[in-house]
Amino acid sequence: MSSPDFEITPRNKVVRRPHRGKYDKATVYDILDAAMLCHIAYVIDGQPYCTPTAFWREGDTLYWHGSSASRMLRNHITGIPVCVTATHMDSILLARCGFNHSINYRSVMAYGTAKLIDDPQEKIEAMNNFIDRFFPGRTKLLREATEKELKATSFVMMEMEQASGKIRNERVHDDEEDYAIPAWTAELPLHTVLGPFAECPRQSPGVVQPAEMSAYQEGRRFDEVMRETYRQHYGAAE
Amino acid sequence: MSSPDFEITPRNKVVRRPHRGKYDKATVYDILDAAMLCHIAYVIDGQPYCTPTAFWREGDTLYWHGSSASRMLRNHITGIPVCVTATHMDSILLARCGFNHSINYRSVMAYGTAKLIDDPQEKIEAMNNFIDRFFPGRTKLLREATEKELKATSFVMMEMEQASGKIRNERVHDDEEDYAIPAWTAELPLHTVLGPFAECPRQSPGVVQPAEMSAYQEGRRFDEVMRETYRQHYGAAE
Repeated sequence: MSSPDFEITPRNKVVRRPHRGKYDKATVYDILDAAMLCHIAYVIDGQPYCTPTAFWREGDTLYWHGSSASRMLRNHITGIPVCVTATHMDSILLARCGFNHSINYRSVMAYGTAKLIDDPQEKIEAMNNFIDRFFPGRTKLLREATEKELKATSFVMMEMEQASGKIRNERVHDDEEDYAIPAWTAELPLHTVLGPFAECPRQSPGVVQPAEMSAYQEGRRFDEVMRETYRQHYGAAE
Repeated sequence: MSSPDFEITPRNKVVRRPHRGKYDKATVYDILDAAMLCHIAYVIDGQPYCTPTAFWREGDTLYWHGSSASRMLRNHITGIPVCVTATHMDSILLARCGFNHSINYRSVMAYGTAKLIDDPQEKIEAMNNFIDRFFPGRTKLLREATEKELKATSFVMMEMEQASGKIRNERVHDDEEDYAIPAWTAELPLHTVLGPFAECPRQSPGVVQPAEMSAYQEGRRFDEVMRETYRQHYGAAE
């Protein structure tokens, strides 16, 4: 049984607004598992790069993939320090002075060493989890990957050595003396939702959306779909 | 008149799927101006960090802000290399093998040196643009910032030395021999939209949403609101 919290070190300590810092794994996991997209910071010859990519979590390990030809992946081979960040923008807050304008958000910054997965069997398992974590039960419907496809794809894993979540979830507020200022103020929520599906025009006759993918429904919030499919694949305890 | 394209160098050249790389400024601007959130990669003592924050563009310069107490801002004072990335996830593409699953997206990676804005007048201008770029005409409704607020807030600018956009906008496709596989395939669009507004319970009597902020309407796509408010503030030619 691993620790319920991430260790707090100078690397992951939330410096600004420390009360918003979250180091318990349950909170960090929840923010990560509600996302498909992350941004990965890494350094090549002193130059920082920030690459967006799809990722997923298994225990305290984050995984992502890429083309074996990509700059990011070629430079991960020997193991390099990375920072993986996932962010949800939840709302915009207007106020009666510039200083009190703000954004409600949930984010995680996770630190570790990114390493290529070499072992062929581990690579196939990572590939299947990559599909099934987002689309439960899907790999059993698909054909297996070919040697050529496997060779062209690299998978990367990073154990989270440290991580911190940061959550801001406040209402519009102003300094008491400012409430008389007649500026319209409101919280403007932002939701990422699924739009109308465009089925493949060459769908096989009689093939419909499988029950295991029922989390995907037009109009649903994507962060909720991500949480639900995570639990379907990995279970609630992971 | 500056060049219509960003110079292509080893730093910003799109290595993987080079046909998706976009170096014309019109395309790069459009992706940036459709976003409020970016992720910024920077390095402190060899450790990469990836920080999410709100940003905006003016010409070839990107701006963002933060608390003067934050780790990111404290380390920007002397000018440090950064990579600023803005990403829009547009849809998820299912397919009949794992390899053909994909995501449609628009992203920009921009490179330069981040510097704190020292000049007090430039700082006030940056602060006003930060508000008015997102909420046209808003600063004239607000009280001015106090000395204390200005001191607590830092603004950063980064001239884009290089940048590249990357766009994937394809339909579901499979290898010809795979179309008979009876796996449900579809494109699942993702839209970030404005939810129902929560007005401040202490709204002054008679104060309503100003006409200049009419881009903000429940249900509208946020990337379109960002484009529209950008043009309202900076004009179409910027």
